Amino acid sequence: VGRAEAETPLPPEFDLIARYFAPLAAGAPGALGLLDDAALVDVSPGHRLAVTADALVAGVHFFADDPPDLIARKALRVNLSDLAAMGARPIGYFLAAAFADQDEAWLASFVSGLAADQATFGIALMGGDTVATPGPLTLAITAVGEVEPARALRRNAAKAGDAVFVTGTLGDSALGLAALRGALPDLSEADRRYLVQRYHLPEPRVDFARALAEEGLAACGMDVSDGLAADLGHICETSRVGARVEWARLPLSPAAAGALPARPDLRDLVVAGGEDFELLFAAPPAREGAILGLGARLGLPVCRIGAVVAGRAVEVIDADGSIVRLASSGYRHF
Amino acid sequence: VGRAEAETPLPPEFDLIARYFAPLAAGAPGALGLLDDAALVDVSPGHRLAVTADALVAGVHFFADDPPDLIARKALRVNLSDLAAMGARPIGYFLAAAFADQDEAWLASFVSGLAADQATFGIALMGGDTVATPGPLTLAITAVGEVEPARALRRNAAKAGDAVFVTGTLGDSALGLAALRGALPDLSEADRRYLVQRYHLPEPRVDFARALAEEGLAACGMDVSDGLAADLGHICETSRVGARVEWARLPLSPAAAGALPARPDLRDLVVAGGEDFELLFAAPPAREGAILGLGARLGLPVCRIGAVVAGRAVEVIDADGSIVRLASSGYRHF
Repeated sequence: VGRAEAETPLPPEFDLIARYFAPLAAGAPGALGLLDDAALVDVSPGHRLAVTADALVAGVHFFADDPPDLIARKALRVNLSDLAAMGARPIGYFLAAAFADQDEAWLASFVSGLAADQATFGIALMGGDTVATPGPLTLAITAVGEVEPARALRRNAAKAGDAVFVTGTLGDSALGLAALRGALPDLSEADRRYLVQRYHLPEPRVDFARALAEEGLAACGMDVSDGLAADLGHICETSRVGARVEWARLPLSPAAAGALPARPDLRDLVVAGGEDFELLFAAPPAREGAILGLGARLGLPVCRIGAVVAGRAVEVIDADGSIVRLASSGYRHF
Repeated sequence: VGRAEAETPLPPEFDLIARYFAPLAAGAPGALGLLDDAALVDVSPGHRLAVTADALVAGVHFFADDPPDLIARKALRVNLSDLAAMGARPIGYFLAAAFADQDEAWLASFVSGLAADQATFGIALMGGDTVATPGPLTLAITAVGEVEPARALRRNAAKAGDAVFVTGTLGDSALGLAALRGALPDLSEADRRYLVQRYHLPEPRVDFARALAEEGLAACGMDVSDGLAADLGHICETSRVGARVEWARLPLSPAAAGALPARPDLRDLVVAGGEDFELLFAAPPAREGAILGLGARLGLPVCRIGAVVAGRAVEVIDADGSIVRLASSGYRHF
């Protein structure tokens, strides 16, 4: 039996929804069982709905033959990271999927990934659309959360004199992608697995970001998706400030720290590789203790990496005081 | 100068957003100038947010060489029709666009279409994502509106004994598509233009649906996107009822009424062609006068086309009392 015959094509749209997607909506009364024309989303008094949308294309944003459950989880987590970037509590999401030649086994795995992350993050599928495309698999997810508007983390709230912080470690995802492409043949198997996992399965810093916003520890933040330098640039541009970060303070995982000395050409990936999905934020230096304490309470390392300054430039300062030159300054789609 | 050289490729993502999309967000403070990680959507007290998402793929849902402004407006209107189907007031939308080989002139036209319909419907762009795809142009729009939950039009609220109503006329869009494909060579130029316009530019029945819901004239409704028979089937399935509609009562435009006698094979398109984006709803027969009066007040013809009955079947009854057999029962993506 050839592969084409062994595949089970996707069932008709309504069966597809009933069998695979409606169970993902079970926890959300406002999803109306995915049976109506729109979902009805409730928002707590005093809150606003935070809404973000991301599109991902096979061959551009992920590999078409990546495990389907990981494709699903990453697509969801990229959006949850945007909600975290506002300090919002995630509520649910809408999935518009254009399927190419995916079969039913693929879909079952994809849906199992969504289900796993729904449980992890306490969210539900609330609606969407499934269509067929002659092109690559394309996923558009719109995630909704809620936040008190006065406490939302904004990009435009950095002030000269603030300290700059980042959660977790930087560069792992870009190094994981480089490893998948065969660029890091000397990695140990354990390090390779760790970095690839960081690429496939980002950890949106939802709990930390919510606590940071709710406890009023920071007003300015965003997630690192285009790379530290580019995203710090977005903060500086909207806040009309500059920033200096110290290379030596940038947090590296043991795997990244082990790989870089032999490959200084990959240093750029730490600052400009992107897809870190860590939280980058600015706050008065006096709050450093409370901020590091919050990280410790939630089991998430937080580093102070630099300072917000006057001007508009983003500079990465090397150990010898020189400015690190970047070959690229963040991921560009065009 | 060859075409390839004459084209201006799309600018980098941030320029693209600043130049073309940020102006579309000017009317919505919650869009935060498209400069932040998520939009903050405010909902009126006592209301819920109605959210709907649709995906459209070039070559599947529209022709890649359709005028870009019409592609934009139809993509938006399909979603506004889903909000109308809930009786919701539209607030704004999120656009996730995967661009293929579109150039800047194409984009300028596309954006002008969005701007025109934003003005028509009083909405704004609130966020989204633009990416590149090696496949066909793919658009995913998530539209948000608000509605009092107790007054929302639901699919599951039809009751045996209700009358079935529909706005506007049926079959025009499917006949317009047939005309574009060359299937209706005998059409007059004026009729052809009318039907093609109905295909390219649906009229979501936003004002009528909102008034219907707010005045409590109907509790059950949806928009006709898959075709009258299929969509009435959705109402019947979720409401656990059946329905009988009379062929002779189905509202036809002069262009459709003129075309069908010579082409009885196209009759199916009226009942099953889809993309009508009219409002289909059920209400107690005693409200017929008020409902027709509302249509007259808003300049929108409304027809009573049949009745909700016990059972689960949807039947279309011909003038001689026989049941109309349909070759197909609505559009299927798979």
